[in-house]
Order: sequence, then C-alpha cells, then structure tokens
Amino acid sequence: MFDKRSTVKEKLTLMIPGPTPVPETVLQAMGSHPIGHRSAEFQAIVERTNQQLQWLHQTTNDVMVITGSGTAAMEAGIINTLSKGDKVLCGDNGKFGERWVKVAKAYGLDVEVIKATWGQPLDPEAFQSSLKADTNNQIKAVIVTHSETSTGVLNDLEAISQNVKNHSQALIIADCVTSLGACNVPMDKWGIDVVASGSQKGYMMPPGLSFVAMSQHAWQAQQNSNLPKFYLDLGAYRKASHNNSNPFTPAVNLYFALEKSLEIMQEEGLEEIFRRHARHRAAAQAGMKAIGLQLFAAEGYGSPAITAVEPKDIDAEQIRKDVKKQFDILLAGGQDHLKGKVFRIGHLGFVNDRDVLTAVSAIEATLESRNGHQGKMGSGVAAAALAIKQNS
Amino acid sequence: MFDKRSTVKEKLTLMIPGPTPVPETVLQAMGSHPIGHRSAEFQAIVERTNQQLQWLHQTTNDVMVITGSGTAAMEAGIINTLSKGDKVLCGDNGKFGERWVKVAKAYGLDVEVIKATWGQPLDPEAFQSSLKADTNNQIKAVIVTHSETSTGVLNDLEAISQNVKNHSQALIIADCVTSLGACNVPMDKWGIDVVASGSQKGYMMPPGLSFVAMSQHAWQAQQNSNLPKFYLDLGAYRKASHNNSNPFTPAVNLYFALEKSLEIMQEEGLEEIFRRHARHRAAAQAGMKAIGLQLFAAEGYGSPAITAVEPKDIDAEQIRKDVKKQFDILLAGGQDHLKGKVFRIGHLGFVNDRDVLTAVSAIEATLESRNGHQGKMGSGVAAAALAIKQNS
Repeated sequence: MFDKRSTVKEKLTLMIPGPTPVPETVLQAMGSHPIGHRSAEFQAIVERTNQQLQWLHQTTNDVMVITGSGTAAMEAGIINTLSKGDKVLCGDNGKFGERWVKVAKAYGLDVEVIKATWGQPLDPEAFQSSLKADTNNQIKAVIVTHSETSTGVLNDLEAISQNVKNHSQALIIADCVTSLGACNVPMDKWGIDVVASGSQKGYMMPPGLSFVAMSQHAWQAQQNSNLPKFYLDLGAYRKASHNNSNPFTPAVNLYFALEKSLEIMQEEGLEEIFRRHARHRAAAQAGMKAIGLQLFAAEGYGSPAITAVEPKDIDAEQIRKDVKKQFDILLAGGQDHLKGKVFRIGHLGFVNDRDVLTAVSAIEATLESRNGHQGKMGSGVAAAALAIKQNS
Repeated sequence: MFDKRSTVKEKLTLMIPGPTPVPETVLQAMGSHPIGHRSAEFQAIVERTNQQLQWLHQTTNDVMVITGSGTAAMEAGIINTLSKGDKVLCGDNGKFGERWVKVAKAYGLDVEVIKATWGQPLDPEAFQSSLKADTNNQIKAVIVTHSETSTGVLNDLEAISQNVKNHSQALIIADCVTSLGACNVPMDKWGIDVVASGSQKGYMMPPGLSFVAMSQHAWQAQQNSNLPKFYLDLGAYRKASHNNSNPFTPAVNLYFALEKSLEIMQEEGLEEIFRRHARHRAAAQAGMKAIGLQLFAAEGYGSPAITAVEPKDIDAEQIRKDVKKQFDILLAGGQDHLKGKVFRIGHLGFVNDRDVLTAVSAIEATLESRNGHQGKMGSGVAAAALAIKQNS
C-alpha cells in the first residue's frame, strides 16, 4: 500500500460518515499479531469489550459483535425477532430507511411504510396513528433509522419510541449506526429493543465489526422467530458471548482496535462525546449558513454526525471534488437522486474542533475561488469559530 | 493491547488452523489509515484484488469478497444457489461437514448426508451411488468440505467432483477454507461450482474477510434461488464487484492486507506454495511418527494445512498446554468428542521449514519431560529434517 501512495495521498482527511478517522493508537493495537480466538487471552478481550459496549449502549442487555457491516447488524436484529408474514412499520426518509424496507420484504414481512420527504424528519405522530389503528395488534415491530446518513436528518427516536410504547407491544428496532457514539442513545431508558451499529462510525475504528444489542422483550420474540439464518443467528452469538467467545472466527485484529477505541471513548466520557458532536454540528451548520449555503436537513433536525449541504445553483459534486483535490479533505457526495445536489460533511467519531474549522475554511476557499461564495471570505470560519466558542 | 502483553506473550507463535501467522508487511499495510470505500483509490484496490483472487482460485469466474467468516461464505454459496425444499447431498466427516448440514437444514433444504468416521476420508463412490440412484435428478447440489480442519483429513475433492459430473447436473459447493492457498484447488479445471474460503488461513491475513467464487452454472442456479437473504445476497456483491466496489461498507483495512498478502503469494507462486505445504505435512507427519505418536487422519489423507495427532495414553490437551506454556507455540486442541484425544499442528499460510522443525522439537521436548516420549529424544526432529530435505 504505502509505496503506491504519495505523500499528498497520505495527507487525506476523512470527513465522510464512514470510514471515519482512526486514532494512531487504535491502528497500532489493530496491527499487532493475531492471537487464537479460543485462547484465554482473547476471552479476556471479549469480556472487557462486552462491558465497554454495555457502557456505550447505556444498557444492561447483551451487546453482540458480528464481523460484518452495519447492514448485517440491522438485518440480524430484524430476522432474529420476527417471523414470516409478520407486519412491521418501517420509517423511510432516506437511503437507509429504504434499505430496511428492502430487508424486511426480502424475508417476506408485511411492511407498512411511514414516509417523509428526504431532508424532513419522520413524524412521531404518524407512528402513533398507525399503531392506534392496529386494533388487532398485528404490528410486531417498528423499524426506525435514528440518524439518516443520506440526508443528515436526526429522527426523534425518543418520541417515536414513546408513542410506540403508549399504544403497542411492538418491538422498536433502531438503526443507530451513525447516532451511537455521537449523541445520546440510552437504550434502556428509552426502551429501544434492538440497537444496531457499526465500527467505522462513532467507534473511531475501521469498518468490519457491527453490533446488536437486544432487550429482554426482543429475546422473548427471538424464541418464536422462524426466519432462516445461520451466520446471523443471534442466539448463537449470545450463547458464545456468555462464555466470552464468538460462534464463528471473529475479526480478531478489529477486536484489538475495538478494545482500544472504547477505552479512549471511556476516557472522554459519554457526556463530553455528545457535547463535542453537538458542537461540531453547530459549527458546521453556522459555517455553511454564513457562506450562504443552505442546509439540507430541516431546521432543528440536523444530525450531530453529519451535515448535508445543498448549494442550489452550484454543482455539489464539483465542490466536493475540488475540496478533495486542493485540500485533501474527503467529503461525501449525495446518494441516489441527491447526487450532485448535496455534499455531506462528516463530523463523526475521531474529529476535533480543528477538523471542523478546517473543513469549513476549505469549503469556503473553494467557493471563493469559483466565485460561488455568497458572503465575505472568512465569514464561514468566523461563524464556525463563534459556534465552537458558544458550545464549549 | 501492547501494554498488557508481556514480552513472552508477544513471542507467541500461532500453529493453529486460523488465525495463522501474518507477515509484518501485511500488518503494516492493514495499519494504514482507512480511505473512503467509494473512492477511486479504493476502487483500484478492489480491481487489483479481484484479479489476484482469480489467480489464486485458478478461475475466470468472479470471486466475491464478504466481510465475515468462512461460514458466512459457505452459507452464501448455499443460499444463493438453492431453493426451499431442494435436495442436497452433504459430505460429513468432521465438525465442518456437520456445520454445512446444519446450514442446509436451517434453510429448509432436504439433506441426504454421506458420512465417514472422523479421521477417515469421504468415499467418492458413495457420492456416485447416491447420484446414480437419483434417477429423477432431485439432487440439486453436493456440498463437500475439502480440507476438514477438525480431523486434518483432506477429502478427495477432485474424485468426488468427477463422480458428480459423471452422473448429475448437481452443483458442487466446496468448503475450501483450509485448502485454498495450501494445496491445488483448480476451480475451473475440476469444475467446482462454488469455492468458499476465509482470510485467516492460506491467505496469511487476519480473520474478517471471506471469499466465494461461483461458476456460470452456479450463477444460472442463482437466478432461481428463492431463499431469503440480504447481507449475503451474492447478486449484489457481483454487481458491485463489476464496478470495482462493494454492496456494503467492507473492512477497508483488511482489503489493504489482502492486496499485500496476495502480492506476497504471487511472488512465491502457486506451485511453490503447494510444494511448501506438502513438505510441511511430510515433516510434521514424519516427526510425530518418529516420536511414537499416531496420526489421526487415515494414511494418505493428511491435509497439507493441518496435522491432527492422537497421542493415545497421554492427555492431548495437557501436551498442548505444556507446549504453549514452555515454548510459546499455540497448537489447536481437539473439537467436540476429540477434546483431550487429539492435538492439531497448524502448518498453514505464513509458515516456513523452521516453524515446523520447531514445533516438532517442542512437542518432542514436552513429551520427553513428561516421560511420554516413545523414541529417543531428537528422533522426531531428525525425521522431520529428513522429510524436509526429501521434499525440497
């Protein structure tokens, strides 16, 4: 690898919603020689990371570790708690909401979709209405994406969860892939039954591990689930986990990274992690507005993990490419019909105030050089710096 | 990690059938900072590794890369080519054969099992008889484990494949997890339809990636497969692969390792890799016999990846533990009913002549110190050294 990447390429800064930047000490831990996954040494790592994961999830439930992507974790949560033909309510206001509809349909579930326009949040009342109308309790689960990565919208998971609990026994299955480790997701307090996440997000790790935490309510449903599975059979993961082990050979080196990254997160503390992400959201939003660019997510619903920006008359993809070329900062583009219409600034995981200030200034300088800057050069950075100060 | 592992722990040598030892340059490649998985830089890595994987598989078919264990790859091969109720023939002469029976049953397949006692090879004639009797062509696939890791037996995949082709259109789905990269598995020449493998074996990489290659015949069957899947939907992997991409966020850093390890393998060349593994099998077998220990696999069917040893009157688990404690060499124990009855010497992947000589001498010294040595101290090493000489 190294020999084919120039110095400039090694200067790359990731500001996409995953993979996110990884601390050097995490990379170093990952780079140590693998050990046997059935050894006492590895069991000690599994035991410790299990405890760390419960801390991160604010739960006493088991958190299972799958070698796979966040999609594998969400699929596992769905197919381990439901049975063929079960009715589910699925929120869809972006690419990931769409994906969970597809997963549910692939397994023969009966899906009622609650939609919102991309950029708008899901309406908690809409879930309430559907559940009220479900007088025969046919709806077995509600599937919701907390932070919708494609649009930068943070759905109100707490309110949706409360509305579900007020009217139903349905499970709440939440995609927390870009919210966990970025903002408050108190699993037990909010009564979320399935929380799915992935390592290349708030965890500050490379991709390859994903996580599923399940409530007692979800484990009861798991007893009756008849959907076929083997690699994603969470019963096997839970049984192995209770012996500080894994049912299949796990990505041992990613476990080394996990242990280290969760240690770093514990040193910072949950409150400070959430405060930092909220500050970066404020700074990115303020910076973009001051430059004269419109935010894509509805006011008040921006995700602390990612800010989607809609530059209107300017090609968003061109801005993204120029920022990469000139400043070695990788921003994310728009997905599907948003391609060319939005770019997205990832400020998730191992990101500090400097990174956000830098991203705003690089975007600002790029627009200035293209005559697309609608304010005074420096106004974006000034607004971002003020937001950082006010949120510190 | 590092700070909690003593110098002695860092001296650990893995001689288990996975995780296997990893070259320092592969670890270093893996330890570089992640890059965007949708970037041109990463597409170049996917393109190169796709070509390298075809070389390793001796095939012109697509080889798909899944973030997951070898089990995920085998499960993908099975559930993407078959439909509910399909009849399959499944070879079972060890723990992994057993596992594929379980996977097939989990998805509602109708499984006819061809068994052999653990330690014995599967009988190619038995497959022929079943297929001859299947006059209505009900058998849609034959599932076989090439190198059975639990017993150290190498099944005669070439003969089984030939017998299947002589009498049937059934697909041949092969678990090549510990054979690929250790001995000849010419996918196209032998007409294997599905070849599954995992990164922590002959690939000389940490665990976390797995691989499925499928023939045109298998892709035709895939068109009609109705078993539910999403994360393991190989159609999505193939489509993405043709764009040098992945359907889900892959383990980017393991891809860095993959590129480097396959480069090292290409430098050595397939013929030399196979010769080296055959030599290590010969050395391990000769050494154990000279010490007076019995091999568990039937004569002539020992795997080039792993040698299982049955010390009879001595507790195999105690030998394993003593070798670890005194010499920092991790051998594998027996699985299920073989626990305490056998130990297994992994000589798979990044292993050289010195490693095998060392393992034999450490086992010999351990037996000598326990008065379990049934020959003259040094006889094991002498026999292993001679076998190395004769096979060089």
